[in-house]
Amino acid sequence: MVYQAKETGPQRYREDIGRYFEDFIVGDVYEHRPGRTISEADNQWFTLLTMNTHPLHFDAEYASKSEFGKPLVNSTLTLSIVAGMSVSDTSQKAIANLGWTDIKLTAPVFQGDTIYAESEVLDKRESQSRPTQGVVKIKTTGTKADRTVFITYERTILVPKRGHSVDD
Amino acid sequence: MVYQAKETGPQRYREDIGRYFEDFIVGDVYEHRPGRTISEADNQWFTLLTMNTHPLHFDAEYASKSEFGKPLVNSTLTLSIVAGMSVSDTSQKAIANLGWTDIKLTAPVFQGDTIYAESEVLDKRESQSRPTQGVVKIKTTGTKADRTVFITYERTILVPKRGHSVDD
Repeated sequence: MVYQAKETGPQRYREDIGRYFEDFIVGDVYEHRPGRTISEADNQWFTLLTMNTHPLHFDAEYASKSEFGKPLVNSTLTLSIVAGMSVSDTSQKAIANLGWTDIKLTAPVFQGDTIYAESEVLDKRESQSRPTQGVVKIKTTGTKADRTVFITYERTILVPKRGHSVDD
Repeated sequence: MVYQAKETGPQRYREDIGRYFEDFIVGDVYEHRPGRTISEADNQWFTLLTMNTHPLHFDAEYASKSEFGKPLVNSTLTLSIVAGMSVSDTSQKAIANLGWTDIKLTAPVFQGDTIYAESEVLDKRESQSRPTQGVVKIKTTGTKADRTVFITYERTILVPKRGHSVDD
């Protein structure tokens, strides 16, 4: 997280979170905290709320006969949590998320697993059409508590320069 | 959706959903139904449950000052629903989701928007290491009711051949 206490009056401080374009340094790695333990409720609710009907995520009997032997956490849930955990370090001031490339699911995630994420700054460039903004490319990696990497992806975000965010 | 009524006894039918490797035809397009209207509750709950702290998704006052003028739906939510809606046509029998490439977010989605999705079969090949399974690549497109395309992505899944799914 990038956190500043913006002074808005005498002995008065407002939380201000997130990076401006100028704050990203190519090659820097941000370890996001806190992590998150994924529960059975998370997996079942998320799967059904997103209209996903694959029984591997909510039918333990079916899952017991699969090659995993138990329910698998929905990969859009792990992706969403990993992306969510990265926001306060990367995109909390962003104008928009532009997309992802190369989302690789490298290991199964199970209910009860605790996951963490970190992001490396791959590239940054000024926007040609928007002089007060820039485009930042990051690579995010999701790891379990035992250090197994279960997801990697690259994500591109449009971020404001200092003085040009919604709260400035 | 691919739906069969499997006869399990006299005048007794079990719902059987999803495609086997043999059922995918390269070039076929599957229009997924039903669609889904995304509510304010969807957007706020999803965002906070996935630890995403970007105010654009849950602070209407902040969002009113952004270039969108109102809350933007979290892009991992639209991705998750679009992927979820595609499951009964593409991956309900899948062993695993292998990953995504080229997720492009081409238009903003707002609370109250109704979204639909469709998938085209781009490629299929037998697995070299798993003779009873195959790898299928699909391109999924998410559109609003007014036909605006807001997301496209490619996804690769590992699916069983007929007779080799968990339920067979």
